Amino acid sequence: MNKQVIFKKRPVGFPDEHTWSLEAHPIPELQEGEILIQQHYISLDPAMRGWLNDSKSYIPPVAIGDVMRAGSIGKVIRSNNHPKFKVGDTLTGWGGVQQYVATNGDSWYKGDDSKVPMPLFISTLGMPGMTAYFGITEVGKIKEGDVVLVSGAAGAVGSVVGQIAKLKGCTVVGIAGGEEKCDYLVNELGFDAAIDYKSEQIYQALKEKCPKGIDVYFDNVGGEILDAALTRLRMHARIVICGAISQYNNKAKVKGPSNYLSLLVNRATMQGMVVMDYAKDYGRAAQEMAGWIMQGKLTSREAIFEGIENFYETFGRLFSGDKQGKLILKVIE
Amino acid sequence: MNKQVIFKKRPVGFPDEHTWSLEAHPIPELQEGEILIQQHYISLDPAMRGWLNDSKSYIPPVAIGDVMRAGSIGKVIRSNNHPKFKVGDTLTGWGGVQQYVATNGDSWYKGDDSKVPMPLFISTLGMPGMTAYFGITEVGKIKEGDVVLVSGAAGAVGSVVGQIAKLKGCTVVGIAGGEEKCDYLVNELGFDAAIDYKSEQIYQALKEKCPKGIDVYFDNVGGEILDAALTRLRMHARIVICGAISQYNNKAKVKGPSNYLSLLVNRATMQGMVVMDYAKDYGRAAQEMAGWIMQGKLTSREAIFEGIENFYETFGRLFSGDKQGKLILKVIE
Repeated sequence: MNKQVIFKKRPVGFPDEHTWSLEAHPIPELQEGEILIQQHYISLDPAMRGWLNDSKSYIPPVAIGDVMRAGSIGKVIRSNNHPKFKVGDTLTGWGGVQQYVATNGDSWYKGDDSKVPMPLFISTLGMPGMTAYFGITEVGKIKEGDVVLVSGAAGAVGSVVGQIAKLKGCTVVGIAGGEEKCDYLVNELGFDAAIDYKSEQIYQALKEKCPKGIDVYFDNVGGEILDAALTRLRMHARIVICGAISQYNNKAKVKGPSNYLSLLVNRATMQGMVVMDYAKDYGRAAQEMAGWIMQGKLTSREAIFEGIENFYETFGRLFSGDKQGKLILKVIE
Repeated sequence: MNKQVIFKKRPVGFPDEHTWSLEAHPIPELQEGEILIQQHYISLDPAMRGWLNDSKSYIPPVAIGDVMRAGSIGKVIRSNNHPKFKVGDTLTGWGGVQQYVATNGDSWYKGDDSKVPMPLFISTLGMPGMTAYFGITEVGKIKEGDVVLVSGAAGAVGSVVGQIAKLKGCTVVGIAGGEEKCDYLVNELGFDAAIDYKSEQIYQALKEKCPKGIDVYFDNVGGEILDAALTRLRMHARIVICGAISQYNNKAKVKGPSNYLSLLVNRATMQGMVVMDYAKDYGRAAQEMAGWIMQGKLTSREAIFEGIENFYETFGRLFSGDKQGKLILKVIE
């Protein structure tokens, strides 16, 4: 049987027990030219919350009755004369929150898990890593000597953003929640400083830790922290709008950045990004990042939880701050 | 005597009768190398409100006790061996709200008022016109076929923004307050459509008048209209943050744009601008704009009020919406 997490009801605010249901259906039969993938790992990302809303966005919302959308990695266990992939291949793609996928292989990519552990392909070498890479280089346009601030800094995207900025010669300050995460940023990832937004007053902490202001702010959180960062911009600063995790489960309107007129005063730019736009360059980025990983210059941490039945509980950890690094669910039994 | 408007007390919210005082002081004596300018016209601009706040901005605030800052135009009536300017020259610069200025001439520029009326040098050929020109071309990066939305569209900056966009082959929609202004935009300036924010529901009107969305939004007003414009962005849209007149006299915090995550969905950019950054290119822009004016392709309207004693009352018209075109005060008696 194929256990699947089915989307049942659009949530208002934070998803509850009626949002999804866990169902078991027969493993699908293969059509000619199809493969069957047994999924090993599912990627859990804050963006998933946005996909549940019935509103115009960068991709269509998940439809009621569909398998919940998710990036994933697994292995081909059956092939009905697939022209390209064979049994044993490791593939990554949009497999959804389920244990088996029958597909013609479109939009699935091979990963060589002899050199790099499988979870990395949906972490630093997957969507979060690509988001970090293109966000900080192409949108943030970092250059040597820049002061870079990143929020959600201990997360899957933020931790890579900060490390890439360090590799490119920037001064990097990370914002995260809790002493343990802040220690991780400074002592393990080599950030220049960290701000614990749970125990520090953010406006004051930014003054102290970015005394010369900020050239690039990579925003994963929105809300109060975005507003505070706006007060510290240097001339011609760039703000990369990657996400707004503090606002995703709002029942009220999103809080807009009151200090946005700092963009005018500082001739600064606030620009949104969606990683899919850079798909044609994923290969190049993944190669560079894999190089850094193998040289020990780029570290990643995965928080791997087990069992597809634990999807809902694990999803909650995305927003509770109760994890470090990339959140992954192991669904193979 | 030299009548001067002196800044006395920083206002909270809208300036009141204690903000400035009108004083008469002797006309200053000239030092060697100085000229005396008799001022004819003073430029009244929404930005003046910002200069009254004691906060970090793109220029220092006006100091208590100083003549109120303002752009101006006048004629040299005396020279104490000035190396460059002579009696009879028409000069434009930062003369402030007063009738006479003694200066060494730094940052004053000659205007040829034999071809163009004097008020135009502080209107379409002055700061508002330059703001429009560089804002819409360099920051808005308009190209033929773009849909351009501009707020404060009947004002000194907005009316020029829209006309330049039309000259460059764009579809232009203007937002202004009242039927008379909207008629002016469409029937006299050649805008494709106008939205009367006083009588129309802005979200609905934008849907109807920008059915394909917006490529460039030139924002002079902030607040609710900025938020509404964000819901209509096309992919890779540009928002030019030029001002936020709806927010300048707030006693409470500025209203941030709740819909800013549209920047993410549409990979759009919001960028602030300050006209002074383009000073080295003013000459080129003024020449192109003067050409358009003389060919009848660029129209401007000045609302000229008389008497330096009427400064406070006239200043109020900047925010009441009770004027059309560039607000100017004639101070020569």
